[in-house]
Amino acid sequence: MTQPTHRVGEASWDAWGDPAHAVSLTESQRDLIGRVLGAAPDDTPGRTAEPDLRLPPAALPEPARAALAEAVGAAHVDTGAAARVRHAGGKSTPDLLRRRAGDVAGAPDAVVLPADHDEVAAVLAVCAEHGVAVVPFGGGTSVVGGVEPLRGAFPAAVALDLRRLDRLVAVDGTAGTATLQAGLRTPEAEELLGAHGLTLGHQPQSYDYATIGGYAATRSCGQSSTGYGRFDDMVVSLRAATPRGTLDLGRAPSSAAGPDLRRLLLGSEGAFGVITEATLRVRPLPEARHDEAWTFPDFAAGAEALRALAQSGVRPTLVRLSDEQETFVNALLAGQEAAPGCLAVITHEGGSEQAAAVRALTAQTLRRAGGGELGAEPVARWRGDRYLAPYLRDALLDAGVLAETLETATTWSGLHRLREAVTEALTGALTSGGGAPLVLCHVSHVYPEGASLYFTVAAAAGRDPLDRWRAAKRAAGDAIAACGATITHHHAVGTDHRPWMEAEVGTLGVEVLRAVKDTLDPAGVLNPGKLIPERS
Amino acid sequence: MTQPTHRVGEASWDAWGDPAHAVSLTESQRDLIGRVLGAAPDDTPGRTAEPDLRLPPAALPEPARAALAEAVGAAHVDTGAAARVRHAGGKSTPDLLRRRAGDVAGAPDAVVLPADHDEVAAVLAVCAEHGVAVVPFGGGTSVVGGVEPLRGAFPAAVALDLRRLDRLVAVDGTAGTATLQAGLRTPEAEELLGAHGLTLGHQPQSYDYATIGGYAATRSCGQSSTGYGRFDDMVVSLRAATPRGTLDLGRAPSSAAGPDLRRLLLGSEGAFGVITEATLRVRPLPEARHDEAWTFPDFAAGAEALRALAQSGVRPTLVRLSDEQETFVNALLAGQEAAPGCLAVITHEGGSEQAAAVRALTAQTLRRAGGGELGAEPVARWRGDRYLAPYLRDALLDAGVLAETLETATTWSGLHRLREAVTEALTGALTSGGGAPLVLCHVSHVYPEGASLYFTVAAAAGRDPLDRWRAAKRAAGDAIAACGATITHHHAVGTDHRPWMEAEVGTLGVEVLRAVKDTLDPAGVLNPGKLIPERS
Repeated sequence: MTQPTHRVGEASWDAWGDPAHAVSLTESQRDLIGRVLGAAPDDTPGRTAEPDLRLPPAALPEPARAALAEAVGAAHVDTGAAARVRHAGGKSTPDLLRRRAGDVAGAPDAVVLPADHDEVAAVLAVCAEHGVAVVPFGGGTSVVGGVEPLRGAFPAAVALDLRRLDRLVAVDGTAGTATLQAGLRTPEAEELLGAHGLTLGHQPQSYDYATIGGYAATRSCGQSSTGYGRFDDMVVSLRAATPRGTLDLGRAPSSAAGPDLRRLLLGSEGAFGVITEATLRVRPLPEARHDEAWTFPDFAAGAEALRALAQSGVRPTLVRLSDEQETFVNALLAGQEAAPGCLAVITHEGGSEQAAAVRALTAQTLRRAGGGELGAEPVARWRGDRYLAPYLRDALLDAGVLAETLETATTWSGLHRLREAVTEALTGALTSGGGAPLVLCHVSHVYPEGASLYFTVAAAAGRDPLDRWRAAKRAAGDAIAACGATITHHHAVGTDHRPWMEAEVGTLGVEVLRAVKDTLDPAGVLNPGKLIPERS
Repeated sequence: MTQPTHRVGEASWDAWGDPAHAVSLTESQRDLIGRVLGAAPDDTPGRTAEPDLRLPPAALPEPARAALAEAVGAAHVDTGAAARVRHAGGKSTPDLLRRRAGDVAGAPDAVVLPADHDEVAAVLAVCAEHGVAVVPFGGGTSVVGGVEPLRGAFPAAVALDLRRLDRLVAVDGTAGTATLQAGLRTPEAEELLGAHGLTLGHQPQSYDYATIGGYAATRSCGQSSTGYGRFDDMVVSLRAATPRGTLDLGRAPSSAAGPDLRRLLLGSEGAFGVITEATLRVRPLPEARHDEAWTFPDFAAGAEALRALAQSGVRPTLVRLSDEQETFVNALLAGQEAAPGCLAVITHEGGSEQAAAVRALTAQTLRRAGGGELGAEPVARWRGDRYLAPYLRDALLDAGVLAETLETATTWSGLHRLREAVTEALTGALTSGGGAPLVLCHVSHVYPEGASLYFTVAAAAGRDPLDRWRAAKRAAGDAIAACGATITHHHAVGTDHRPWMEAEVGTLGVEVLRAVKDTLDPAGVLNPGKLIPERS
């Protein structure tokens, strides 16, 4: 078992990620935003300093605190303000707006830091016995309310921070798998795997902070999903602690021994148990990488090209297509002259003959579909910025701009109707006297049968940005459900998508989820208020 | 909606498949078997004629019969002997041995043939209300007891035969999907898809009889799984009737909206509900096919070559490797001189540049791993016989030979230990005074992390072949479990693998399955005695 030598630092409590990476807008960018969106920072509530926060006293009953201290050691039950504030929720725009406004009333009553699987199990037992809600916390990057410390029916909640589960447990070079503990952040996991010449190849925008356990619990999907697969597909086996005991699932790469119960834990969002380690498919570190940008006359032509590629079975490592608006705005932000059409980003990893063949076949398919090659430069730009967009959001919030993202997926035949419906819903809900919102869209994950759509929205924040976003999100979610698409392709459910879970899986599907939860978590202490709609 | 013009005929009641395809052994083959295995037909119980069967009277209570007739029409509730005998169970060797011996005591009390989803739902409601066990029946090809009409706690059982759900409901050419009803046998489904220039590419040995619904319910895996994927991977959405209502699952190719509940129905073996239709990934009919056989010095070298191929991401359509014994016996059966080493069968479909590239890369990988090309002829031979092995089993049973198969899967690193352990277990259990059994093995499904192992066993049947096989199966299953491998890669659980389900998914995993069943089938009428171990 090895541990990383470089640790990811603590993220900001009221902004995305590392405070050292915060960006600010230039005067002219702020002017432009004011003109285009009608946004003005003065309209918008300001930012509260940490010492001025109104943090309620910790309400953890003493017997529960003592039992938790017994389970993990007193040093690992933190009721201090700094820890509680940093576990007050995730990183959605509503989360940040609330925290900037000084609202940390929902912060957990303690942060508990178990060292291993058995300590996680012990914490769950204590919480079940004492009636304390327990909210698993990995990187804290949820943008759907997944780590909000809701109490449910209980008087107190603890955040179960998994950062001490930070070991590479085993590498099986023959099978091409590695067993990683749940609390490892991606850079830490990649450091440990890199020492063996291996990589996971999982690169979501939350890369710097998100954890192995979080990826599994939320069915994460990284930017290189075309080549490496979604996180789901990487999981050979996993281990979870529940209040009823331990689940060890997965005895072969593939099986017909009843339903695949691994898939019941993947996406369970801490409501069924706490995933403590996973054995994952890993790959050799790529010897080489080839980036290429492509341009298409319009989004429809680009989507057709991606469909042809996905259905041909040729799989580049990374495939991404921006629509006309996103292509235009990205060029503008980079200080480039915006060309017409849509930009696609393609990456090929590996130095083998096979990688060369895939590259040639990809180029042939895209060219036949009307694409034109633009070289590597636009990809280098995209790559340099790809984990930074959330920092830009903080700067936009400062400038009176409500900026947020949402995503969905559907079949290729439903893609354009879905894009139009969501764009229309967001535009309708966010158009005000001041101006219309910007609604940008891209495809970032492709399958033979369909693709994801990822929307980025910017609008004047106004006096009540929380209310504005709530209305826009509701309109977009209803449009997605009406199109028969999925409410989320890779952000998960949390609190924010719960209203659409019945539309997604049906009343009976929800009952099945409840039955599984009642079996594994009879006291109902695990992450209350997430994933599964309340009984009506 | 279209229906097939050519229907698959009724299978034999006491043998595999089409009576017209029955084979018999030559005198010299029988002599050889006698010498090698010590088998003698005279030792073994003979075969009972259909009119001599001791079929108990149908025990379906009249109110239940009347309600079923109301649900599906009186013509579609068949209590006749011919129908009951033909739904008395599946096609494992123990199944056939029992039926050959005249034992059809377990035949269902009626065969019910609903026309569509709503009639399936109505049948389930009647059975739940009247306390009648209901056993979904597709192609009847289960080799693990999956369609055995066990009564559970109920006085009667009906077989729910899905053959009238035989429609192609929809084709989405853009998404590359087709919606097929559950009762379609593969040749029927392929006829309907072929009219659109499409194919499913799913080719298990049970191809001629097995159904779409059966494939989904048992997590089937076809011979071309390397190119087309397992059946699980083809399912975009599915519809199931349960006693508690309908489940419609799957709204996009991929989603993060909680656990993938499609995967809970896949592999549910009729214990949670009856799958009535599925929307599946389909592909264009291949323009061309290229077959090539390869030889490797031994099984270890061949397995290493397959591992290199699977981990490189290069995917031929079909990959298969016989061990030394299987290679030898197959050559003997074909009247060829047996060459040393192991034979691998590789197939590439598609006439595109991409198929050519995959073919070249495959050859390069196999050559580097020590393989030698043998041309297409051995593949043509294998292909000609590939659905016929079960007919040979009937001839072997006639000749006093106990012949059966079993399969498992594990990681590449565990493959050889698993093969040795299972071979040893089978050999130990089946060696008698007369001689040692033949134990043949092949890899037929490969993944980056591991592969399946498929064993074919032939031994002298002796006076009680059922008992002999029971002991051998128990020894093999225990060896598989002890190796940490899966008890089944594609045969499913049924009754025969139930003793190892707790080893496979743990006590808590079994409880989860029970909780799901109790939610969807509170009366417990759905396929009792399968998949989920009894409460102890």
